[in-house]
Amino acid sequence: MDLEIVENGSVTSPQGFSAGAVYAGIKSYGEGKLDLGLLLSQVPGHAAGIFTTNRVKAAPVLWCRERLASGRAQAVVVNSGVANACVGPRGLEDAAQMARLAAARLAVDPGLVLVASTGKIGVPLPMEKIAAGLERIALSTDGGHELARCIMTTDTFAKEVAVRLGIYGVPVTVAGTAKGAGMIHPQMATMLAFLTTDAAVEPGFLPKALARAAADSFHMVSVDGDMSTNDTLVVLANGLAGNRPIARGTRAAKAFQEALNFVCQRLARSIARDGEGATKLVTVTVLGAKNRADARAVARAVARSNLTKCAIHGADPNWGRIAAAAGQSGGELDPDRLDIAVGEALLFQGGLRLDFDDKQARAALSGNEVAVRLDLHLGPCSATAWGCDLSEEYVTFNSQYTT
Amino acid sequence: MDLEIVENGSVTSPQGFSAGAVYAGIKSYGEGKLDLGLLLSQVPGHAAGIFTTNRVKAAPVLWCRERLASGRAQAVVVNSGVANACVGPRGLEDAAQMARLAAARLAVDPGLVLVASTGKIGVPLPMEKIAAGLERIALSTDGGHELARCIMTTDTFAKEVAVRLGIYGVPVTVAGTAKGAGMIHPQMATMLAFLTTDAAVEPGFLPKALARAAADSFHMVSVDGDMSTNDTLVVLANGLAGNRPIARGTRAAKAFQEALNFVCQRLARSIARDGEGATKLVTVTVLGAKNRADARAVARAVARSNLTKCAIHGADPNWGRIAAAAGQSGGELDPDRLDIAVGEALLFQGGLRLDFDDKQARAALSGNEVAVRLDLHLGPCSATAWGCDLSEEYVTFNSQYTT
Repeated sequence: MDLEIVENGSVTSPQGFSAGAVYAGIKSYGEGKLDLGLLLSQVPGHAAGIFTTNRVKAAPVLWCRERLASGRAQAVVVNSGVANACVGPRGLEDAAQMARLAAARLAVDPGLVLVASTGKIGVPLPMEKIAAGLERIALSTDGGHELARCIMTTDTFAKEVAVRLGIYGVPVTVAGTAKGAGMIHPQMATMLAFLTTDAAVEPGFLPKALARAAADSFHMVSVDGDMSTNDTLVVLANGLAGNRPIARGTRAAKAFQEALNFVCQRLARSIARDGEGATKLVTVTVLGAKNRADARAVARAVARSNLTKCAIHGADPNWGRIAAAAGQSGGELDPDRLDIAVGEALLFQGGLRLDFDDKQARAALSGNEVAVRLDLHLGPCSATAWGCDLSEEYVTFNSQYTT
Repeated sequence: MDLEIVENGSVTSPQGFSAGAVYAGIKSYGEGKLDLGLLLSQVPGHAAGIFTTNRVKAAPVLWCRERLASGRAQAVVVNSGVANACVGPRGLEDAAQMARLAAARLAVDPGLVLVASTGKIGVPLPMEKIAAGLERIALSTDGGHELARCIMTTDTFAKEVAVRLGIYGVPVTVAGTAKGAGMIHPQMATMLAFLTTDAAVEPGFLPKALARAAADSFHMVSVDGDMSTNDTLVVLANGLAGNRPIARGTRAAKAFQEALNFVCQRLARSIARDGEGATKLVTVTVLGAKNRADARAVARAVARSNLTKCAIHGADPNWGRIAAAAGQSGGELDPDRLDIAVGEALLFQGGLRLDFDDKQARAALSGNEVAVRLDLHLGPCSATAWGCDLSEEYVTFNSQYTT
């Protein structure tokens, strides 16, 4: 059985997951929009997480890291509107209280409840609103879409995907939802992402699988070069599909990894496409690097470059800025061997500007998906990064709105 | 004798320097603006340089690095409009030819002529226009101002400064000019900067003195996070002041270093103030860091942060973005000890948002000079970085103009 996309899939597509969300009044903007959600597995499962490497970490990040030391979890409580970051010692108390309130509401062990927050930094969580809101959440096996919407802040669309695959002949589902928009830069390049699966896995299997999937997805996205205090990526695997537990190094592990990668890449790309002010999804592919680290560094540097992003915004085939961005990445690069293309238009080859068709090049930069390709001709390694253009709207938005 | 700013100073303020410039027709925009210049010392002198660390290096950078191995130079030929970068093997031939033409025009050894270019990447130098232009340049001891103007590209004002000091009782002058505007990020954070002095120095003295001065000036500037292919900082010391040559570790060396630092910081700040689309000069001061590297990393990360720059553009006291930018710098930082202030307004102290006066904070962010101060309370080290706000004009400009 190959990988199959689940129609209208969400984090409640895998068996045994339910979710729901309400507007609890945490968001000061967007009255009536969902801002508090719950995700529950019928049974406790294996879990793993990856979090911001920012030295300024929000309280829920600290809470989750501690909880996930056990490798087990059963539920997630999440809010948008307030980040619960930079509020002093009460931050951790509020995160713990949020977990306890959710645990009581769901009748699960508070130690198995993960907590995530996104929104304004420096504002304390309105705990009474959260307590009241949690009581009102109705969970359903179709509630994944609500969860996807309740984590949105400046996102313009919900990001969710589910895929089905066969593991030892048993159908298994892997799903995820994420929110992005601003303060998106590796590592981590997501603000919040929740993955669910009904696959049974061996203890200790998930952390490495998640790290691998993140390496080629969330870690390769840049919207604006700013790293959040709240970045959280967690995966819950409840085993209810009933497959033989997946162990490292098996063919089943490989198939599962592909599914996990697919879900993470889909979500990561959606985050780039929906970057604040973005009008274009930019995919930067680097080929021919000496090693993987160089390939990743070059791809990320090009995706991050303000000048390159501005040029793409204006559909300007400005390969010089791409070359300069690539050259500053730290990755090994010989300008005399470098090729640069946008879409099908090769602009620069072996260190020389080609006499390219300007119209064709501009056309390749004019759609809402732009492909930039660099071939370093130094070795066998490649990498892909995702970003977006930099628009006047990004600046207007971020100079007038307090996040 | 203390440091004294020379009124209307320029790179020809030190004794024995002359300069001049013409419009040679290299710039396709700005018809009639100066775009080709010469700087000459009456006698060969000591010289040192610092260049872009971008892997994609323009040909003049390669030329200068090779020439400066001798530690000697007598003249500089410089053009704006074309960067002589990414044009294949002819780039180095053209740079060498430019040096030979200038040497013939000035009757000096071509091996003592430094070459610098700034402008569009991927366009070959129009060598005939350069040859014809060089013939028309009239050098004068007041020509420094022309040199400052001829290196401008998207700069809106010329950047130049000269200071006088006493070395062993003898008056000595140190001067400089620079151009910046876009693609400005450490290391190097200038596109072009030329320093001149009539001080006599011991052989081998200049490279370390220049590196020190650059560390706290050009290396601490970020306009847009993009690093140029052409960054060049050179200093020429012709010894015509007649002082006892300055040797390392002496009081004279210290005085000279202070003058060099002053000149470099003045120029670096001007570059930040004149960043593309910038409306504000932003000075980020970090205090209380455990070590100097941490202080520098935090200061630079805050100066670079797009979200912080947008907030400053909108005069929004968004200390959360400043905290997040500081936390992602890699420098050690404890959010629970961190203080953040803008101007006189303390916004965040010891990990907690203060109940600050929003009007006062906005006022501190509303002038054309903004001071951001972070105290890490972890140690004795400090650093300062300079940047600018990010405006809609930056995006408009860089999405419509091919550099």
